[in-house]
Amino acid sequence: MSGMAQTRPAASAALLRESGAVRRVAAEALGTALLLAVVIGSGVMAERLADGNAALALLGNTLATGAGLVVLITIFAPISGAHFNPAVTLVCLLRREIAAPLAGAYVAAQCAGGLVGVFVAHAMFDLPILQVSAKLRDGPAQAFAEAVAAFGLVGTILGARAAAPKATPALVGLYITAAYWFTASTAFANPAVTLARTLSNTFAGIAPASAPAFVAAQLVGALGAHAVFGWLFRRDPSIEG
Amino acid sequence: MSGMAQTRPAASAALLRESGAVRRVAAEALGTALLLAVVIGSGVMAERLADGNAALALLGNTLATGAGLVVLITIFAPISGAHFNPAVTLVCLLRREIAAPLAGAYVAAQCAGGLVGVFVAHAMFDLPILQVSAKLRDGPAQAFAEAVAAFGLVGTILGARAAAPKATPALVGLYITAAYWFTASTAFANPAVTLARTLSNTFAGIAPASAPAFVAAQLVGALGAHAVFGWLFRRDPSIEG
Amino acid sequence: MSGMAQTRPAASAALLRESGAVRRVAAEALGTALLLAVVIGSGVMAERLADGNAALALLGNTLATGAGLVVLITIFAPISGAHFNPAVTLVCLLRREIAAPLAGAYVAAQCAGGLVGVFVAHAMFDLPILQVSAKLRDGPAQAFAEAVAAFGLVGTILGARAAAPKATPALVGLYITAAYWFTASTAFANPAVTLARTLSNTFAGIAPASAPAFVAAQLVGALGAHAVFGWLFRRDPSIEG
Amino acid sequence: MSGMAQTRPAASAALLRESGAVRRVAAEALGTALLLAVVIGSGVMAERLADGNAALALLGNTLATGAGLVVLITIFAPISGAHFNPAVTLVCLLRREIAAPLAGAYVAAQCAGGLVGVFVAHAMFDLPILQVSAKLRDGPAQAFAEAVAAFGLVGTILGARAAAPKATPALVGLYITAAYWFTASTAFANPAVTLARTLSNTFAGIAPASAPAFVAAQLVGALGAHAVFGWLFRRDPSIEG
Repeated sequence: MSGMAQTRPAASAALLRESGAVRRVAAEALGTALLLAVVIGSGVMAERLADGNAALALLGNTLATGAGLVVLITIFAPISGAHFNPAVTLVCLLRREIAAPLAGAYVAAQCAGGLVGVFVAHAMFDLPILQVSAKLRDGPAQAFAEAVAAFGLVGTILGARAAAPKATPALVGLYITAAYWFTASTAFANPAVTLARTLSNTFAGIAPASAPAFVAAQLVGALGAHAVFGWLFRRDPSIEG
Repeated sequence: MSGMAQTRPAASAALLRESGAVRRVAAEALGTALLLAVVIGSGVMAERLADGNAALALLGNTLATGAGLVVLITIFAPISGAHFNPAVTLVCLLRREIAAPLAGAYVAAQCAGGLVGVFVAHAMFDLPILQVSAKLRDGPAQAFAEAVAAFGLVGTILGARAAAPKATPALVGLYITAAYWFTASTAFANPAVTLARTLSNTFAGIAPASAPAFVAAQLVGALGAHAVFGWLFRRDPSIEG
Repeated sequence: MSGMAQTRPAASAALLRESGAVRRVAAEALGTALLLAVVIGSGVMAERLADGNAALALLGNTLATGAGLVVLITIFAPISGAHFNPAVTLVCLLRREIAAPLAGAYVAAQCAGGLVGVFVAHAMFDLPILQVSAKLRDGPAQAFAEAVAAFGLVGTILGARAAAPKATPALVGLYITAAYWFTASTAFANPAVTLARTLSNTFAGIAPASAPAFVAAQLVGALGAHAVFGWLFRRDPSIEG
Repeated sequence: MSGMAQTRPAASAALLRESGAVRRVAAEALGTALLLAVVIGSGVMAERLADGNAALALLGNTLATGAGLVVLITIFAPISGAHFNPAVTLVCLLRREIAAPLAGAYVAAQCAGGLVGVFVAHAMFDLPILQVSAKLRDGPAQAFAEAVAAFGLVGTILGARAAAPKATPALVGLYITAAYWFTASTAFANPAVTLARTLSNTFAGIAPASAPAFVAAQLVGALGAHAVFGWLFRRDPSIEG
């Protein structure tokens, strides 16, 4: 999520066949797979151990996700930018920092990687590999929370890039740590993660019926952040709002 | 809270009409709004999940607030200094680092932003937008705790500026993490936050009747820190105390 | 674990007799001893206090282990590379960053140090010094989880070296923090640690009968990471995969 | 605790009357006072809220102490070295980094500051200011744990100075976070803190009868670390052990 500017506008569709594209797309797939293994796996572990206390379960889930994100973004950012998130890739596309074909490949890799990560988590915990979540997360308040979550996530990334680029992995990890608690939806904030979590009937799952509203809200929030923080963090101080 | 020196004494009342002032005031409003969304939202989530255990509820509230502060201060500091707190703005004014009109605009933006943040949190959790807290936090011990909390917060900011300016966001986040637990009042330490929290009858709320003593104590603590840490961290070593 | 490149291929078997080897091996022994004291000690403390809640026990164990790792790796890395882990030393050997005799001495020091650390923990908590764990951790899912844990650990180390070498201690600490929760086996990820933990019939113990499968899985995971991340993080961008 | 080298051997007894000594001693007193306010205050808060669960109480106490230490050491280190601990000052004296008279003044300031901090915590929580702890912490295992705790603390400080001086505050905070859990005594590791905690009959207190063995063990551990880590982290690589 940190290195959105890894791929320049000049790099057009040809990039996919060029040196580096394979490694970039592989990094997005592997990184998102590991992210989902962390999210789903820690949710299963935390719920199993928490003896029915949902706050304790969310604490374990939060700790693992926040810590894991810092690691994954740090090590994959120099290769692919470590988006792991179609909403982030979309914002990069709008900012002309990634070419459309590569962006498309990123999104496909994120979605596929996320599913693999869910399967890995299930295998580690001796659960059926294929599952469908029955956990409804419905209603306008949940959707609004997802919009806020994605708004904050994209704002964090854009702000980090402007203020402290090297701290981006830590800031994203801290943001998600906070957002697991301050948003009513526990901050999915990521369409690929939302899709993957529909296939896990565990602590971190979401019923497929609830997913479309989540994804729509995430895109609205991301686009809102693109507008608001794009103005706030723009580099040219001569154009005053 | 980190970049108190963003606006220099030379910048007088005219600053409000100058390039940058709109963006600065907007940053204070948006940053304080997001801070309150984090504080109130994570308080609601934590209390809902904690099954009556107040330590667990405070753990979730602390984790989210500390992590959120690091993010918000990092990304908004280059724009407005990331005060988010009238007591901090007051100390900046006394140190002649901000002009009085801009300081006034900051305080207004902080108070207004804080209220919006509370409303956002309520909307995310499907609660009535307008509420009034019934949680009394009274007595001299609570007021003393608030004075200590604000004393420590301003000391942290002044000390960070002198010793490790780039670490200011992390240090403020860590300070509040500690202060949620070591002060009996859970460290509001911020008049705008106190005002906003009167309008939330949730975990992090405070009854309006208890607010004036909190705000007064916060100002006393901040002014005390201005005196004590101003002496301790002054730059000129030739004038010995 | 951070400074795998401390000893160069050029340094051959003679290294053991050379200046520095004694200190390096001593650092591996002392560091691994302190690591085990932290792992076992915090497990005992957490289980004693947690009143039967396994999530709380794992939280305390996680917090201590993650924090302790950051400290130990930071201070021992300049001396020995702070492997503390035969799987990490093996990967260094394959990468020709350490000579075989020194690698052998490292592994012996790690195993011996780990045992001493377990004894120290038992002495601090007034437990019988010599114990054998009765906690079975069996089955293919547990073994798969260990392979994933070691894969992620070695990936973290190789990625950190490529992307942010100075952040290696923090990243390893964060990785283990996450892995205690997202892997079903609570991420031993270390043959020397596994061996040592067979001799503690406490929270963090593992029955000797379960250890061989854990160690084998750890080596498989480490070798897999050596292959995958070696390709992903290789420095020469002209050779495209 | 980070800047042990702030005062050089050349600075003799005259230092106390020289420019800076007043400020240094004041920093030790104020810093230790704030440290004790954090330790005692968070212990009271955590125990009150934890509903009888000691692991939760220790979690809150740990979080606050670790976070608070990072802040206090960062901001006071440039002034006094941020010892806050007679065992650390003793090691500095042995390393000839502080003159004996100033070291004496440091220890007096630490002890006095610690008492004031305890009183501040009691006042914040509306408790009797003067108390005596009835919590016995006896036996050889507890004393051994304290020796290990102080050994690790001094090792952390000496190692941080050699490997990553700027990270010292974070490393000490992380060490104490770990040591609250991995040592059976919850790592007092500090004679001034031990003395102060005898005067608080709360979560973090210690009965006066238990204090002498703790202090003796702390000094033994600190001197052991001075010997072991002094050899391990010495700068001259030509003298091989």
